[in-house]
Amino acid sequence: MRDLSHPLATGMQVYPGDPEVHLQAALELERDGVAVTALRFGSHTGTHIDAPSHTISGGRTLDRVGLDELVGDALVLHVPGLADGATVTTEDLGDLPDRVPPIVVLDLGWARHFGTARALAHPAVGVEVARLLVDRGMRVLGVDTLSPDPTGPEGGGDFPVHEVVLGADGLIVENLAGLDGLPTRTRIGIFPLRLAGDGAPVRAVAFD
Amino acid sequence: MRDLSHPLATGMQVYPGDPEVHLQAALELERDGVAVTALRFGSHTGTHIDAPSHTISGGRTLDRVGLDELVGDALVLHVPGLADGATVTTEDLGDLPDRVPPIVVLDLGWARHFGTARALAHPAVGVEVARLLVDRGMRVLGVDTLSPDPTGPEGGGDFPVHEVVLGADGLIVENLAGLDGLPTRTRIGIFPLRLAGDGAPVRAVAFD
Repeated sequence: MRDLSHPLATGMQVYPGDPEVHLQAALELERDGVAVTALRFGSHTGTHIDAPSHTISGGRTLDRVGLDELVGDALVLHVPGLADGATVTTEDLGDLPDRVPPIVVLDLGWARHFGTARALAHPAVGVEVARLLVDRGMRVLGVDTLSPDPTGPEGGGDFPVHEVVLGADGLIVENLAGLDGLPTRTRIGIFPLRLAGDGAPVRAVAFD
Repeated sequence: MRDLSHPLATGMQVYPGDPEVHLQAALELERDGVAVTALRFGSHTGTHIDAPSHTISGGRTLDRVGLDELVGDALVLHVPGLADGATVTTEDLGDLPDRVPPIVVLDLGWARHFGTARALAHPAVGVEVARLLVDRGMRVLGVDTLSPDPTGPEGGGDFPVHEVVLGADGLIVENLAGLDGLPTRTRIGIFPLRLAGDGAPVRAVAFD
């Protein structure tokens, strides 16, 4: 099994404008007999899932997302060598099957930049790519960047890929890691904290 | 796939003395263009895993626990009808195989009391049960109670089962849910947030 999740740690990079990550001892072994940590972070921290309600008014919340939507044989597309701020085009995807599985993962080679300024300059997914994948059966889009849409220094702006995927009641998984060399068809599992709202941090794995 | 995790929500029950659970809107769709929630809770909230360092000085932290330890064909033992505060004995386990799989789950029928005062009066696992299971190959003990050890009104006290299991470098999963009727052999997955310390909330599932 391979871990497709970034570790969570105090001060780690977050999407601009999101809550900071802060982990602090609440109970200590020597003093209290047990060690327990107080955790503070946002629902879109690290490797995480966006429910439709993240950007869509009246959209589905995470409690209405079934585990069966989040585990399956995924299509993993490796699109290396993109420039900072580039846009992924339909040509970049190569020969796409007429029907794709419900989970599609784009490996843009950007997970290695997580935690650095260059993470913000990630390539974005073209809106026509999102439309094509949804048309062909994609329900969950996974990326190894902060967002499939461009991320400005202040965050925010327009979210055309979010509109297409979440607007179709689909899901987006951001900040995937460990995608290098994964086979084009890989059984993947996305396991969010059982939260009810706009999204949640996940443990994402590739099964052998 | 079946969900074996309790939902996380503001004000939910926690182990006495642990940090409270607080979820609050950080960004709002109408105002900010996206919905993001600020999360605050302890590392041992809801359905969660204890790393050895939770109660063992110098014990292994969660970053040293591999995903392969947390997924596999588990032995699920249903021990219904116990009284409040009862102790699970080796006799209660029935006919135990000479070797048990690395993951053993005890369904004491207590998940239904989660969130009520009766959750605190849960049955406890006898220390000789823990020793027997570890001797027979158990590495991960899952329970549907706040703890395999008795929980006092203030928490704390002694943790003999924690000492045996975590002291053997094993792991404990607490507050499992949804165990009713699971076959004696069930493929189970425990997927913690990727934290590095004493434990973490998990999404726990039973695979079909």
